[in-house]
Amino acid sequence: MTYCVGVSLDAGLVLTSDSRTNAGIDNVSTYSKMYQCETTPDRFLVILSAGNLATTQAVIQQVKRDVHEGKPRNINNMAYLADVADYLGEILVNLIRKHNEQGGFIADATLVLGGQIKGREPNLYMIYPQGNYITSSSETPYLQIGESKYGKPVLDRFITRDASLEDAAICSLISMDSTMKSNASVGPPIEVLIYKRDQFTTPKHYKFDAEDPYLLAIRQEWAHHLNQAFRSMPRLEESQAQPNSYLRAL
Amino acid sequence: MTYCVGVSLDAGLVLTSDSRTNAGIDNVSTYSKMYQCETTPDRFLVILSAGNLATTQAVIQQVKRDVHEGKPRNINNMAYLADVADYLGEILVNLIRKHNEQGGFIADATLVLGGQIKGREPNLYMIYPQGNYITSSSETPYLQIGESKYGKPVLDRFITRDASLEDAAICSLISMDSTMKSNASVGPPIEVLIYKRDQFTTPKHYKFDAEDPYLLAIRQEWAHHLNQAFRSMPRLEESQAQPNSYLRAL
Repeated sequence: MTYCVGVSLDAGLVLTSDSRTNAGIDNVSTYSKMYQCETTPDRFLVILSAGNLATTQAVIQQVKRDVHEGKPRNINNMAYLADVADYLGEILVNLIRKHNEQGGFIADATLVLGGQIKGREPNLYMIYPQGNYITSSSETPYLQIGESKYGKPVLDRFITRDASLEDAAICSLISMDSTMKSNASVGPPIEVLIYKRDQFTTPKHYKFDAEDPYLLAIRQEWAHHLNQAFRSMPRLEESQAQPNSYLRAL
Repeated sequence: MTYCVGVSLDAGLVLTSDSRTNAGIDNVSTYSKMYQCETTPDRFLVILSAGNLATTQAVIQQVKRDVHEGKPRNINNMAYLADVADYLGEILVNLIRKHNEQGGFIADATLVLGGQIKGREPNLYMIYPQGNYITSSSETPYLQIGESKYGKPVLDRFITRDASLEDAAICSLISMDSTMKSNASVGPPIEVLIYKRDQFTTPKHYKFDAEDPYLLAIRQEWAHHLNQAFRSMPRLEESQAQPNSYLRAL
């Protein structure tokens, strides 16, 4: 499995991904799931991927090939980020259909596209295996793919549109840490990409291995503070107990 | 949906359940999912349920009827808790099969059984829709059914076999709160049952409505402490950033 999360803020974008892939529990590998596209300088595009590795690799391959071959539709000549999302959706659907027709199985994948095209706002899209897509909103500034449930509560608590890029990155790392703690199919290295709006060429890219001191510090500090929080919770009072002993008489 | 969690400790058992049911998102109701069985005084049995409401109600109905009619196999004459789990599994499978045959659909349900029979240890079982079951262990002292992922990280952090009953109850409530925050299909009232080992007749039963002061206090204190923890996380350093600008060249 996989866990990736993208956050769209007033200040820019933060994209985070794990690197564990598996074909069955006894076939575990490490692959990056974050692809920054080589583009013309008027745009910045990053793709996060979850799902079948053959499918997601083929999507990226096709994106690169269309640029290389100067196809009329490629990521460098689209005017809107939504057009890029639509284009990725079409590639995705065609690949999934092809694999289904020739192999008789559904090699699903889901993508997150983050980026900005000069003169427009930075934005975030989630592209479904059916080829359609949604974007984030001011109320829901983040999009998750893969094993999304374990790490959702902490995002719900702290991610707002006006958060700083660094706070969003730290929150995404805590979300990733909670997911890794509860699910063995999500694992390091963890990549974080911080894109400041209107910056285009030089996002900050972080890659944290399992034993990275910063990742360990985040994990230990969070565990330490949660432990303190847990110890200080209000106690249950005897008086709060209900008098009834038998709970149900259906 | 549903979220229920049972915890098996050296000190006894803690069982927690929500009360929201839905048949489609526009048909939401409130039903308790915690059933303490009326038994002979040599035993204590509680069932938590997730899944199709007609199925789980029919299971409880059958359990009560078999006692009432003095059937050779009923919850009062089984020597082991595992026998009760097996019996519940059989009822469950037969009901699911019946509804499938007559209605052409799978009305799945999953149960957690917690209890103790005099002379034996308290124990916890999870019973699958296929009728088989697993028990908890010293390494995994809790079992969850329903929307289990949101609330799993906090259980993984704090639940150990030697935890106190009260700590396990508070941890279960935090786990429930995180789940309710991220998933609208899980909702109050929240029930908590605390069973001290070898006590049999008088477990403590708590029922918290949405506006219950204790539930609100837990929620607010936890949010407050997490906020403080988040604000004190170590900051990302510029120097941790990777030099490479382009992440992948497939």
